[in-house]
Amino acid sequence: MNSALTQEVRPTTILEPVRLARRLGVRIILAAETFQHTGSFKFRAAHNVAAQVDQKLVITASSGNFGQALAYACSLLSKRAMVVMPATSAQVKIDAVREYGGQVELVDVRAKSRAARVAELAAEHPEGYLASAYDDPLVIEGNSTLGVELSLIHRRDTPFDFVLVPVGGGGLSAGVIRGLRRMHAEVPVIGAEPLLANDAARSLAAGHIMANESEPQTIADGARTLSLGRSNWEVLKDGLARIIEVPEEKIAEAVRLLFGLANLKVEPTGALALGAVLTEPKAFRERTVCCVVSGGNVDPEVYRSILAG
Amino acid sequence: MNSALTQEVRPTTILEPVRLARRLGVRIILAAETFQHTGSFKFRAAHNVAAQVDQKLVITASSGNFGQALAYACSLLSKRAMVVMPATSAQVKIDAVREYGGQVELVDVRAKSRAARVAELAAEHPEGYLASAYDDPLVIEGNSTLGVELSLIHRRDTPFDFVLVPVGGGGLSAGVIRGLRRMHAEVPVIGAEPLLANDAARSLAAGHIMANESEPQTIADGARTLSLGRSNWEVLKDGLARIIEVPEEKIAEAVRLLFGLANLKVEPTGALALGAVLTEPKAFRERTVCCVVSGGNVDPEVYRSILAG
Repeated sequence: MNSALTQEVRPTTILEPVRLARRLGVRIILAAETFQHTGSFKFRAAHNVAAQVDQKLVITASSGNFGQALAYACSLLSKRAMVVMPATSAQVKIDAVREYGGQVELVDVRAKSRAARVAELAAEHPEGYLASAYDDPLVIEGNSTLGVELSLIHRRDTPFDFVLVPVGGGGLSAGVIRGLRRMHAEVPVIGAEPLLANDAARSLAAGHIMANESEPQTIADGARTLSLGRSNWEVLKDGLARIIEVPEEKIAEAVRLLFGLANLKVEPTGALALGAVLTEPKAFRERTVCCVVSGGNVDPEVYRSILAG
Repeated sequence: MNSALTQEVRPTTILEPVRLARRLGVRIILAAETFQHTGSFKFRAAHNVAAQVDQKLVITASSGNFGQALAYACSLLSKRAMVVMPATSAQVKIDAVREYGGQVELVDVRAKSRAARVAELAAEHPEGYLASAYDDPLVIEGNSTLGVELSLIHRRDTPFDFVLVPVGGGGLSAGVIRGLRRMHAEVPVIGAEPLLANDAARSLAAGHIMANESEPQTIADGARTLSLGRSNWEVLKDGLARIIEVPEEKIAEAVRLLFGLANLKVEPTGALALGAVLTEPKAFRERTVCCVVSGGNVDPEVYRSILAG
């Protein structure tokens, strides 16, 4: 079932939704990773990790997009992926990892932490590579391919005034910055972070990594990280122009606008960049803004409730 | 606000949803027109009509995708579009035509038919061109660009065993056939028509155009046509390999599968081709099938109710 279309990383999907642009008075260019393999940018990092390490087995803990991405990347590269997930994970997420060819290791988190189970598996499988979803130079390198793509569009088609990128663990934003700068594109990169999970904004202000005390309960579940990854921080501390903290209602409004005026199904985390435009409309008025849409995987019930407004 | 990205017809968006393919046991390639200008394939026809005719004013009756497409095509070509819509049309549809630069002529259909109002406007504006959404050789020619695109993918990337295309008035299917054959691609083209609106299937069986007695109330509102256009029939009567009649529940299931396994927001009419695969799964097992997704514009409430299942 494989072909040129299914192998390797897919180029991002560039969309220019005219009605959305007119409505906001901002020239919006979307770089959608919703049609990337496994439905999110995470495949870029996962594929790079799986391709670069010598090990034939890759172990990770993820109940979200990284687990699916790693499972599929490993299957394309004839490697094995072992994904630790809480036993309470939604069945559709477990099915997704399995359908992409991954081996799911369920852990009862009341009895044992995910980290403990990962450590056990690593001890049982010394031949395996232990992969982090967002704190690994290989992750930044994988995601940097998106920055390179954006630099080409910036140069050839549409010069951007700003690139807006969702910030969770910081792997995507660090990768985009790294890719743009490698291609000598000096366009400012602005982070878009949920106000409820604003550890990166606080870190930039403090000059060192600040952590959330507990997992933030933002609707943008891809940004429910405790803190930035250390490798990412080294890029972000000087590489980000600034961070916009996006309230929950602006995230939801952005999901609805992308549905209504761009025909784009996005997960809440994927709507953060547009949500940042809605949060500070004056900052972007009449400017050309590339919004990175990080992924599209969202539960139908969550999506229905957002659409209901 | 215009650039290389916003001018002319956009290439179709080719997606290969791996999980969907595995789930169905069919190699599915999607040709999505949901990101075409104005969100549906209709822009291909509308742009060709507006570009080819000498008139600076184009008049049409449409409460759906063709009206929006014509409005935007005319605005790009510095022409005027006049779109007759029932006064009872949803406000979002009226707004869409206006936001794309069209002039909306509302008609109280209890007092006067849309056709009568169009005839009045044509008499008032003898300098205008009266455009049909689906019965005009310029429409077939415009839509044939999609067939040409598919022929290139068929030849270069992925040979298709079948191309499946939604059938309403027949303008899209006739255009796809015309474009493929012009490029000497002999792949069979199968129509996908709502069972509730099966006039095209009955026409193929009878050997002449058969009409529905009244507007069929299928959820696929783009296929609520009374009959095939005459120019389209001339292409379809020998050009279509066959037609699959798709029950309403298969249309809805296809919308949900495209949401869940392809991250694609489609309107019900846009899901007809995948719905045809679901209707006759054995016919396509292990084959490579290109499903044309004709458009993505759907009311959020309708979409929410389909997602609820």
